[in-house]
Amino acid sequence: MTKPAIDAATLELWFELGSNYSYLTVMRIEELARRHGVKIIWKPFLLGPIFKSFGWDSSPFVLQKEKGAYTWRDMARQCEKYHLPWTRPSKFPRRTVLPARVALLGADEPWIGAYSKRLMQINFVEDRDIDTPEVVSEVLDGLGLPASDLLGEAQSDENKLRLRKQTDEARRRGVFGAPTFFVRAEMFWGNDRLEDALRLAARIDPKADES
Amino acid sequence: MTKPAIDAATLELWFELGSNYSYLTVMRIEELARRHGVKIIWKPFLLGPIFKSFGWDSSPFVLQKEKGAYTWRDMARQCEKYHLPWTRPSKFPRRTVLPARVALLGADEPWIGAYSKRLMQINFVEDRDIDTPEVVSEVLDGLGLPASDLLGEAQSDENKLRLRKQTDEARRRGVFGAPTFFVRAEMFWGNDRLEDALRLAARIDPKADES
Repeated sequence: MTKPAIDAATLELWFELGSNYSYLTVMRIEELARRHGVKIIWKPFLLGPIFKSFGWDSSPFVLQKEKGAYTWRDMARQCEKYHLPWTRPSKFPRRTVLPARVALLGADEPWIGAYSKRLMQINFVEDRDIDTPEVVSEVLDGLGLPASDLLGEAQSDENKLRLRKQTDEARRRGVFGAPTFFVRAEMFWGNDRLEDALRLAARIDPKADES
Repeated sequence: MTKPAIDAATLELWFELGSNYSYLTVMRIEELARRHGVKIIWKPFLLGPIFKSFGWDSSPFVLQKEKGAYTWRDMARQCEKYHLPWTRPSKFPRRTVLPARVALLGADEPWIGAYSKRLMQINFVEDRDIDTPEVVSEVLDGLGLPASDLLGEAQSDENKLRLRKQTDEARRRGVFGAPTFFVRAEMFWGNDRLEDALRLAARIDPKADES
């Protein structure tokens, strides 16, 4: 059977712009993936509907106060370890619907990494809301992109439906948190598994699929 | 103010003999701690009462099926990474009250590491129950220890109360899972943080406390 040729080892990055552990990964993954020779497939999605499907009305870091208290201490230490700036957000979790819709439009574009990083910084360093047309425009403008065109397209019924479908796909594949990585069928959960996932992706010979 | 002199950097290891991620840590920690020049303070406790205090009647890996499914895949990969044998237990979580009571007796004894490792192997490699006098005796016998004396002492009212108090202390200090490490007031959760915790413990100069 002929399959389409794959040119590089790939890793799917399922991320949520409001997720603090996704922040650690989004800030680190491009450099690490380059070093491993792995192409990133960017998969923005929404955690809210996934948590709702478990019967939760917020993040586990809010619902379970012991884990929440720990998480903020852990984040401060992890950011120190990775030399990343960090401000504990005064609002958590923040709404991310609009920036996620735009991220979906850009998922296969060269600007997806820079766009995602900038939004993460606004949320987790500058401690500002990100689910407004003003902030998303500010980010797109800063990248030299046509903000009003992209915002219009992001809010189309077709794109709204696409994001719902993408989140449905995450749930169907067993995603229960973010970031989550897939290397083919192999799922890895959490920033702590990024290096393991990249190592596996790099080890798989893409040519093996071409027969 | 004079404090008692501390001879070495120390790390508290809070572990539960039925916890699969504690298995990864118990098998690894002695060698790593030696390398970092850190003394381990062994703190066996029971996760069941902690989970009950959150309103849970079992492990989150049982209650949340997506996370549970992931956990077993993750465990297989983690054990491969650490070169540890692994069998997914046919019963999870297993009861651990009796072996935990014995662990508490041995917490400051030279045999605590070997004892804990052996029980972990019975649970997570040999897939056998560990909460029976027969299995605990088998382990103690294997270490050349007076099994029936220790079992008797473990089941004394005083020791039963001590284990309840130890578990209460865990909850009071914010422990919500296992393994958990403390380096002074600094709490680290999960086998993934063992190296970070050891590095912090090694960095703190115990002599600084002697003034």
